[in-house]
Amino acid sequence: MQNKKTIQNTVTTMNEIVLPNDTNTLGNLMGGKLMYWMDIAAAMAAQKHCNNIVVTASVDNISFAKPIKVGNVLKIESRVTMAFNTSMEVYLKVWGEDLLTGEKHLTNEAYLTFVAIDDEGKPVPVPEILAETDEEKEWQAGALRRRQLRLILGGKMKPEDANELRALFN
Amino acid sequence: MQNKKTIQNTVTTMNEIVLPNDTNTLGNLMGGKLMYWMDIAAAMAAQKHCNNIVVTASVDNISFAKPIKVGNVLKIESRVTMAFNTSMEVYLKVWGEDLLTGEKHLTNEAYLTFVAIDDEGKPVPVPEILAETDEEKEWQAGALRRRQLRLILGGKMKPEDANELRALFN
Amino acid sequence: MQNKKTIQNTVTTMNEIVLPNDTNTLGNLMGGKLMYWMDIAAAMAAQKHCNNIVVTASVDNISFAKPIKVGNVLKIESRVTMAFNTSMEVYLKVWGEDLLTGEKHLTNEAYLTFVAIDDEGKPVPVPEILAETDEEKEWQAGALRRRQLRLILGGKMKPEDANELRALFN
Amino acid sequence: MQNKKTIQNTVTTMNEIVLPNDTNTLGNLMGGKLMYWMDIAAAMAAQKHCNNIVVTASVDNISFAKPIKVGNVLKIESRVTMAFNTSMEVYLKVWGEDLLTGEKHLTNEAYLTFVAIDDEGKPVPVPEILAETDEEKEWQAGALRRRQLRLILGGKMKPEDANELRALFN
Amino acid sequence: MQNKKTIQNTVTTMNEIVLPNDTNTLGNLMGGKLMYWMDIAAAMAAQKHCNNIVVTASVDNISFAKPIKVGNVLKIESRVTMAFNTSMEVYLKVWGEDLLTGEKHLTNEAYLTFVAIDDEGKPVPVPEILAETDEEKEWQAGALRRRQLRLILGGKMKPEDANELRALFN
Amino acid sequence: MQNKKTIQNTVTTMNEIVLPNDTNTLGNLMGGKLMYWMDIAAAMAAQKHCNNIVVTASVDNISFAKPIKVGNVLKIESRVTMAFNTSMEVYLKVWGEDLLTGEKHLTNEAYLTFVAIDDEGKPVPVPEILAETDEEKEWQAGALRRRQLRLILGGKMKPEDANELRALFN
Repeated sequence: MQNKKTIQNTVTTMNEIVLPNDTNTLGNLMGGKLMYWMDIAAAMAAQKHCNNIVVTASVDNISFAKPIKVGNVLKIESRVTMAFNTSMEVYLKVWGEDLLTGEKHLTNEAYLTFVAIDDEGKPVPVPEILAETDEEKEWQAGALRRRQLRLILGGKMKPEDANELRALFN
Repeated sequence: MQNKKTIQNTVTTMNEIVLPNDTNTLGNLMGGKLMYWMDIAAAMAAQKHCNNIVVTASVDNISFAKPIKVGNVLKIESRVTMAFNTSMEVYLKVWGEDLLTGEKHLTNEAYLTFVAIDDEGKPVPVPEILAETDEEKEWQAGALRRRQLRLILGGKMKPEDANELRALFN
Repeated sequence: MQNKKTIQNTVTTMNEIVLPNDTNTLGNLMGGKLMYWMDIAAAMAAQKHCNNIVVTASVDNISFAKPIKVGNVLKIESRVTMAFNTSMEVYLKVWGEDLLTGEKHLTNEAYLTFVAIDDEGKPVPVPEILAETDEEKEWQAGALRRRQLRLILGGKMKPEDANELRALFN
Repeated sequence: MQNKKTIQNTVTTMNEIVLPNDTNTLGNLMGGKLMYWMDIAAAMAAQKHCNNIVVTASVDNISFAKPIKVGNVLKIESRVTMAFNTSMEVYLKVWGEDLLTGEKHLTNEAYLTFVAIDDEGKPVPVPEILAETDEEKEWQAGALRRRQLRLILGGKMKPEDANELRALFN
Repeated sequence: MQNKKTIQNTVTTMNEIVLPNDTNTLGNLMGGKLMYWMDIAAAMAAQKHCNNIVVTASVDNISFAKPIKVGNVLKIESRVTMAFNTSMEVYLKVWGEDLLTGEKHLTNEAYLTFVAIDDEGKPVPVPEILAETDEEKEWQAGALRRRQLRLILGGKMKPEDANELRALFN
Repeated sequence: MQNKKTIQNTVTTMNEIVLPNDTNTLGNLMGGKLMYWMDIAAAMAAQKHCNNIVVTASVDNISFAKPIKVGNVLKIESRVTMAFNTSMEVYLKVWGEDLLTGEKHLTNEAYLTFVAIDDEGKPVPVPEILAETDEEKEWQAGALRRRQLRLILGGKMKPEDANELRALFN
């Protein structure tokens, strides 16, 4: 176990100032630019774990809360929570921060999955990943259930075969 | 009914050439840049329907298929499928197209929801929307189920209260 | 004739939201950014026809009408109207659209020409193109006259040799 | 005459390095990006003359010669050649320069016209402009003829009324 | 002393993937783009300390070591080290990281100073800042000497008046 | 001496309009974007002299004076002042210009150094450079002193070995 790579090793922090071109006519950060940054922050975490090129395979359902204003800071913290055969689940927390007031609020959380690929674009195996803290273990515990939901929503699994997920509805 | 706005009225087409800065080191369009364009294409469809400023409220689970290469064309077609009180569901189809071979493939489909807001950022009611074709009626038929899933995944509804959705798992 | 490629096959639609960095200090879309998008929209239409890399060879005289405001939508529709030996004439219509009012106005029309090239940059022949509707036939009818004007203005033809064009002035 | 503003006062030089995102898949500067920079270089010359906000009114026919490669330098020299009531004609020369070989070639020349406007977008008068050298006087001499062509091509003048221009065809 | 703001409170981390447009023709990050990101990372640290708008007042001498390649990650860590009347000194460490090999190297260190301003651009006082660790105290100890050098190099102090700095040369 | 390259040969002028995304929330050009343009303007001057790829080696202390507003013009004039073995010192003058008033002010001056490299990134010798005017000779006269300061500040020379520089402090 001592050589296993850890979730902690993959933590990546991004801080960006929201500029005029990132915003709509009310001066609020556009959802698409936020997802652009989330994808990059998540890809860096995935690459740190597998040391390979990675491609975005899927994005789980995301809800956006309070808007982030132009001039404010967007902070993203990403980490790999689970490694499957050739794919990794990355968990992100996203905050908006007003540096003039010091006020900071959680904007959204998200799970993205990435596949590790070689130079020809073929998927390659990724190392296992170790959860060390209770919070990290909780993230891993839900990973299988989230994966089933992704497969169902992506049309690759039948709802009746998703045992972990079905339990939620009964 | 004759004054109702239609789904067809909201159809918006976007064609973009994938440039070097939009791609990873293998020359494939990055997922984040794709989502950036998807959000803009979807926002235009939503604005066409409600004639108000809109903000992205949520993005449903998205899976990405075959990569789109640098120099290829990204085509997005967006349309509002359902109008709720102050929010709209937008459906997108995304294709990659290699103009040197004429080959074109569906990259992914997605549902985004937007909320119509006024100048102070307060949600405002949106008009009803009319499905005219069979395909459009099918989109609307699934809208309630998808909305339940969004609310559950966003932590705003209990799984046991989502009757339409539960049916899927039993 | 049945295998001939048609004008209709090349129609390409682009919709873009005008962002702050695309505008001057009054919040109006700058002419240069508009031409940037026009060139891309036109190049996609030309590539659809010839399935080759293309380069911009010339831009005909363009006049700009009413300004397009920040937050509005720029819509461009491009199509190849005529194929010469190794070059194609592309016709564009450009609209500005205010999604908050639904108001839409034609901003300008333009003709750009592109040359099809191979990997070493050498011009290569392009297929013929078929006009099917009356409007398309009218575009083609004027193509030779516009080509003569381009050649004269580019210093490659003497005014007295441009028979079709001279007729205009007599 | 001693207080008149001169053509020389408006000369503006722009040097830009062509970056990957400015180029097509062969690494050649795209025509649209070139026109983007030309418009900005021309607008600066026009603003220097009239000390007002300006908007692009028209672009004369442009032909593009040899391509400019990624990593090369694009050099633009712009100057106002003629002032009409509320509009100005700007003449541009554009070069591509390979700094690794020292080789430099003229890519194209162009005439753009700008209208001076006030804060509400209304056209405002511009000062007269003085041609001092023979070359400058030659530019001014052709200005009326070019203006007639613009008006005809923009559908605002009948060919038979353009006396200066008609002379070319007879 | 218990309410004093600390250096630790200002630490800001930025991780960016180097994209094609950020690089020269050899695929190495351009110095200017690196300085662009350094300025933003430093400004965020300064704003966290003073909760005001800040402007860059000066940049100390910077040397750049090993290049950072396209596709690699640029990591910047910034912190305020000293607060003067209305200005702050920010210290940055910059690393390049190759995620495919896990190799990481220090690219450069730098000191930037920022002035806190109000809405009219007038300088405003900034709070004191507390150094807690030995490393932080060392940064503060050199702050006065660096400030003298800045003032001399900016032509605002005579070399013979810079006592702390002169000691270095004797 | 007659074949020597001159300082005058390397003069490069850049004029840029400051756009919204280049500015902070007060509409003032950000220091980082200014340094981005300075680096490009300086690199072009260095490349003109050595006809090789160049990389930024260092930036001397820079102080920023009056801010440049959105919509104003940034003008940079760069020239190589001194050639060492494989490196060149480039001197820049930077102005902000308000085209609506005609007012123009010097924002800052700076010295950057570049190293000429071959395709593998190895430093290569650069030609000597000739100062022709008194002003140019003065720039060269200070070059050695500035180089000593760079080496000391970069930790590559001991203060007591910098004879030219020490003289300043005694």
